[in-house]
Amino acid sequence: MGIKTIEWSKGAIKLIDQTKLPGTLKYIYIKNIVLLRQAIRMMKTRGAPALGAAAGLGVYLGIKDSKAKNFRQFKEELDKVIKYLAAARPTARNLFWGLERARKVVLKNKGKPIRDLKKIILTEAKEIIEEDMSACRRIGHYGAKLIKKNDTILTICNAGILATIDYGTALGVIYRCKEEGKSNKVYACETRPMLQGARLTTWELSRNGIDVTLICDNMAATLMKQGKIDRVIAGADRIASNGDTANKIGTYNLAVLCNFHKIPFYIAAPVSTFDLKIKSGEEITIEERGSPEMTSLFFKKPIALNNVKVFHPAFDVTPHDLISAIITEKGVIRHNYKKNIRRIIGK
Amino acid sequence: MGIKTIEWSKGAIKLIDQTKLPGTLKYIYIKNIVLLRQAIRMMKTRGAPALGAAAGLGVYLGIKDSKAKNFRQFKEELDKVIKYLAAARPTARNLFWGLERARKVVLKNKGKPIRDLKKIILTEAKEIIEEDMSACRRIGHYGAKLIKKNDTILTICNAGILATIDYGTALGVIYRCKEEGKSNKVYACETRPMLQGARLTTWELSRNGIDVTLICDNMAATLMKQGKIDRVIAGADRIASNGDTANKIGTYNLAVLCNFHKIPFYIAAPVSTFDLKIKSGEEITIEERGSPEMTSLFFKKPIALNNVKVFHPAFDVTPHDLISAIITEKGVIRHNYKKNIRRIIGK
Repeated sequence: MGIKTIEWSKGAIKLIDQTKLPGTLKYIYIKNIVLLRQAIRMMKTRGAPALGAAAGLGVYLGIKDSKAKNFRQFKEELDKVIKYLAAARPTARNLFWGLERARKVVLKNKGKPIRDLKKIILTEAKEIIEEDMSACRRIGHYGAKLIKKNDTILTICNAGILATIDYGTALGVIYRCKEEGKSNKVYACETRPMLQGARLTTWELSRNGIDVTLICDNMAATLMKQGKIDRVIAGADRIASNGDTANKIGTYNLAVLCNFHKIPFYIAAPVSTFDLKIKSGEEITIEERGSPEMTSLFFKKPIALNNVKVFHPAFDVTPHDLISAIITEKGVIRHNYKKNIRRIIGK
Repeated sequence: MGIKTIEWSKGAIKLIDQTKLPGTLKYIYIKNIVLLRQAIRMMKTRGAPALGAAAGLGVYLGIKDSKAKNFRQFKEELDKVIKYLAAARPTARNLFWGLERARKVVLKNKGKPIRDLKKIILTEAKEIIEEDMSACRRIGHYGAKLIKKNDTILTICNAGILATIDYGTALGVIYRCKEEGKSNKVYACETRPMLQGARLTTWELSRNGIDVTLICDNMAATLMKQGKIDRVIAGADRIASNGDTANKIGTYNLAVLCNFHKIPFYIAAPVSTFDLKIKSGEEITIEERGSPEMTSLFFKKPIALNNVKVFHPAFDVTPHDLISAIITEKGVIRHNYKKNIRRIIGK
């Protein structure tokens, strides 16, 4: 470990510019919300739980220099900041959850001076960060119970340190297994088009001493057929109240493959990823991104016809019946999801 | 159409350098078998049926300047050339089939002068080319019967003009449908790591007026779930006598997805792709390629850790029970494959 994906430092949001990895570990300091929204859109910072922290810190960044003279003015500015940041990306639940937490804590402290409200927002954001660090370790604790010694695990995208503050959800389970001496092997799907698996997951697993092998997304089926995969663990961007789970495009594909090859398929995510207001995955907005990410590598060397039509959903939805278990910081949730999510997550 | 992927021209093998597409349509003239084997290994020319033609022409290229004084000497040189070219790539059946055809035609004409034998080899190679052109059109004819008007078809890799002489197998079916006015829409899997779908399939379909949309390999499942795919057609590199089919890595993944989503999954390939000497796909050698193709884009910009371990099978095997039909120039083969392959292909 030893790195923090995102934190508050020297009057700015300090974050790892993930578009520079695996080549360079570069930190950037973001001092206004225009640059923050841009950084989120361009995926300089990404990962649902990390976006929850970015949201909390982002609200503080947007409001800390407010000249509002009364609560009404302050609340107006706050709502504007929240609305602005909410438009960064549409799928990850944690972004909206982080923004809502900031809004709620302000409403709760309505009577206090504006100077105090600002401090309260920063404190709340720092609490989101602390909670994430602790939640990821709890997820690791519960998830590791599902993993046997020498199991080989397949994962997609990056649900690790770089998607959270410093430990990871799906990869947190793997880190915990290592701490327990379970010596697991990991296959990482490269995760086209943005290659979070190739760029980020192999990077962070390698530097933490995990035996990782990179595959192209279309090779997972062959590995499973060869009996080389014992379990699949993925993160989540949003989980509906029936357990349907939106995650990085390609996750649903893996779930179908697991179903066919009778391999357990797990989702690992903090409670903040659940959206109990929606009944099923059908209500989840799936972000569609532009063609350059697909037709050229990071907008440079072309790898396809310039003007070719593309279909580019950034996420997909895995129906709950293909999910063997959802690992959260409050415990492992299994079928019947509708009932058990309410029971464990509450509300 | 209007282009030929590979042909004999001006004392050389003239072929399209497919590593330059879609940027540039560049022809290269290959005048010795060292360069030919290199071109095949580097996938400047590729596609199972095209490799059959490359094999036939390659034998002539390797033997045409022979100084052999008698048949024994000539035969020795011939065997050396064949052995040399056979080592280019291990999976595609058609390469070995093309080499064997050259060997057989020489043995059949054993009594003739060496000058004549050379001519006979060239004639045989040209016949392979003619036969491919005709076989692809027959495949198109039979395959088009399986496709309905307005069907949307998903394909992987490139089983088109660029994988054959001038028409294609899987894409030949689509060209035929267009000739029949069926107006089908095509989704092309980009086909990592070498991106034949992104670079070649979208290129040739676009220039032939087919409505094509590019996806990343991991997006196929989502398209199927959304009901947007009516059929999948892929080419083949080798088909065992029970119907098990080796094709570009990712094909088996699509077959599993089709099974789950109840979508017909077709293989389109000429008879030369069948290897009736092997009982099942388990006997097919799967080429494993190096890591640079996965960790950097065409050996240039790095997209993953330099020294990361990779698993890089170039092909996978789809078991026959996941294949709805195999489309050949002799007709459409369905279950029971073991029986029907023998009946239709003969031997």
